[in-house]
Amino acid sequence: MRLSRYFMPILKETPKEAEIVSHRLMLRAGMIRQQTSGIYSWLPLGKRVLDKVAQIVREEQDRSGAIEMLMPTIQSADLWRESGRYDDYGKEMLRIEDRHERDLLFGPTNEEMITDIFRSYVRSYKDLPLNLYHIQWKFRDEVRPRFGVMRSREFLMKDAYSFDLDYESSKVAYDRMFVAYLRTFARMGLKAIPMRADTGPIGGKLSHEFIILASTGESEVFCHRDYLDLAVPGEGIDFADAASLAGIVDRWTTPYAATEEMHDEAAWADVAEGDRVAARGIEVGHIFHFGTKYSEPMKAVVTGPDGKETPVFMGSYGIGPSRLIAAIIEASHDEAGIVWPKGVAPFDIGIVNMKPGDADCDAVCETLYAELQAADHDVLYDDEDNRAGAKFATMDLIGLPVQVIVGPRGAKVGEVEIKHRAGGERETLPATDVVRRLAA
Amino acid sequence: MRLSRYFMPILKETPKEAEIVSHRLMLRAGMIRQQTSGIYSWLPLGKRVLDKVAQIVREEQDRSGAIEMLMPTIQSADLWRESGRYDDYGKEMLRIEDRHERDLLFGPTNEEMITDIFRSYVRSYKDLPLNLYHIQWKFRDEVRPRFGVMRSREFLMKDAYSFDLDYESSKVAYDRMFVAYLRTFARMGLKAIPMRADTGPIGGKLSHEFIILASTGESEVFCHRDYLDLAVPGEGIDFADAASLAGIVDRWTTPYAATEEMHDEAAWADVAEGDRVAARGIEVGHIFHFGTKYSEPMKAVVTGPDGKETPVFMGSYGIGPSRLIAAIIEASHDEAGIVWPKGVAPFDIGIVNMKPGDADCDAVCETLYAELQAADHDVLYDDEDNRAGAKFATMDLIGLPVQVIVGPRGAKVGEVEIKHRAGGERETLPATDVVRRLAA
Repeated sequence: MRLSRYFMPILKETPKEAEIVSHRLMLRAGMIRQQTSGIYSWLPLGKRVLDKVAQIVREEQDRSGAIEMLMPTIQSADLWRESGRYDDYGKEMLRIEDRHERDLLFGPTNEEMITDIFRSYVRSYKDLPLNLYHIQWKFRDEVRPRFGVMRSREFLMKDAYSFDLDYESSKVAYDRMFVAYLRTFARMGLKAIPMRADTGPIGGKLSHEFIILASTGESEVFCHRDYLDLAVPGEGIDFADAASLAGIVDRWTTPYAATEEMHDEAAWADVAEGDRVAARGIEVGHIFHFGTKYSEPMKAVVTGPDGKETPVFMGSYGIGPSRLIAAIIEASHDEAGIVWPKGVAPFDIGIVNMKPGDADCDAVCETLYAELQAADHDVLYDDEDNRAGAKFATMDLIGLPVQVIVGPRGAKVGEVEIKHRAGGERETLPATDVVRRLAA
Repeated sequence: MRLSRYFMPILKETPKEAEIVSHRLMLRAGMIRQQTSGIYSWLPLGKRVLDKVAQIVREEQDRSGAIEMLMPTIQSADLWRESGRYDDYGKEMLRIEDRHERDLLFGPTNEEMITDIFRSYVRSYKDLPLNLYHIQWKFRDEVRPRFGVMRSREFLMKDAYSFDLDYESSKVAYDRMFVAYLRTFARMGLKAIPMRADTGPIGGKLSHEFIILASTGESEVFCHRDYLDLAVPGEGIDFADAASLAGIVDRWTTPYAATEEMHDEAAWADVAEGDRVAARGIEVGHIFHFGTKYSEPMKAVVTGPDGKETPVFMGSYGIGPSRLIAAIIEASHDEAGIVWPKGVAPFDIGIVNMKPGDADCDAVCETLYAELQAADHDVLYDDEDNRAGAKFATMDLIGLPVQVIVGPRGAKVGEVEIKHRAGGERETLPATDVVRRLAA
């Protein structure tokens, strides 16, 4: 993308309303814009990150055997009356009346709807296990939306729902998602630590939050230092191998880890002092096993091998890609701006033409722009006539992993500079070597 | 995807509520499910088609220079009060009150919001032309939703908005979208004919609907036979070349074409009788040039080269991917089911294992499944134990372009059968030749 043809409205001033760094940086980098309290547009740069994050979530859901579908944003209140949650949910639910005075709502989550879909089609244990997910906009009418997309009212969520014949197999489904989540966050450059969690309005007894450590985190968390070095399962992990999944979950749940709500001072005292990590954390995912909480009242039953009908065992599994982006920035930024982990950056590489109009600069930049795109990189080419300082500040602010800087002196002799955003390392090299140097 | 691990709930009976063939076939093929009046879930097979259609729309928008972003579904009523449309829009608008008693609405379209975004960031003619689009769920509270996703209440829409300094340049933006639309529909196997149209609640004087001919269409349309053979511009079209765009638009608007509303009996009488095509049509896209209708009241102005402020000239451009899918099916089906045009099919190829458990069948199928996927095809592998008749009926119903049929006798000697869904041609060939035979 040529910057001169792009829409990336950088803000020079720090917006006053932004209390946390991710919110400030997303506004300044022209990623988002608040339309009304807690409701945001995703400007082109932000949309690119949202797509990349959602795509990683999708790939890891698919790898684990979950199947993508898409439920609507608007739901009928009747479904929620069946489960008994319509009144429970309170004012956070955005309730709507249509022209025929029927009660609708903007879905804050989809347990009821997916249970209704399941009971409409599935009759036999032979169609299990089944895990259906979607990535769709949700709405929770927070009293005080804040922190930008970290706590917005309209937000994107991936929610998956597993269906199994009995407790044991539904526990395998839970483990499958647990492992998929470890992989998902690791691919985004995040170290996410699973912690036992309260189940709140979703229900059930078994639940984990995935928490990343960030000094600006919303709540205090406590964990064993071992988590910082635990290996995340590789691509080759076999999601059909229940024993090996259980082994991984075991390794990732044995050392002490707890959010403030679930913190146990006695157990914490048993952790050696040098192994204690007390830090601030941000929740980036939440998984629930709630068994038959919805299938019983909503009569979602299957016939087992014994010919008897039994309510299906369920779990649900959420990741909020919009919120996650704020969390990634909280965990990865510096004074100059965002430092995108590879894989979620809006573009992989930024080319900075220091002197548009200079024949050498233009020629070198155009060649690199074409070659790097041909080599499958997403490239932002700053071809605008602007001060050097402003160009560098913008590139640092938007945090692309690699900058290729092309100045007139270097271009004349065919040389360019590469700057790595994360560590700040710079190197000068022949323009003809750039593609090879940046090969994945 | 292995059918045994997929979720594709085929209905054996024809649902009574479905009045038109696309609705019937989408329900029977397990593509969609109505959740409540006019609100649908997209089951996995439907979601795949929705993604493919949206991706073609996206690619052609990008090619024409439009930039993708994403606006929220929920909007503030205040914005619509500024443009004066809040009261105009009537009961089709889904109005909502939040917990703080602020008036919100589920966006039926986004002219106001994009104008607000534009005026917040853009000040100078130097940042023009600009065309921003998004693909987002919209809601129109139809009195009587029907025909499945053809006329649903919650529906997916791509809406693009162009911004230009004056009438002439905004006409170029209009032409650019006009040409992008021709390409978009052609890539989906559709022959879409642009027809002058009423502008309705969007406003403005210049507007075209893109109509496909289908015997089940919603309205009567009239056009010159020449349209049926007009060439659609190729990939290489230069969207910076205003003159050549205007030439294409000229060729595509000169022969007579009109919807019922705009039909002119006198002009129609001038068309030679043998050239008249009176048929039924389905609207699949609608583009509008409305100049300063929103920019004036909302004060979206730019400074021109003369230093004077002037309201920006705008147009908006819609395609409904969810509706489009129904239209594609109306235009492309037979007695046995859907006949997907290449490019929008949920899978490119279906492999039918006639005897799962037979060592030869399984081996041939597994090899083909791996090889065809490695060759970048989306493959559905029917590995389920089922009657031959049911297997064939399902494959025909879901309409994948190519079926590869593997029976025990053929498999024993390494032979399989290929069936092309559209024409029904069959050929028997060595299994080892399939990948080459099906190369794009």
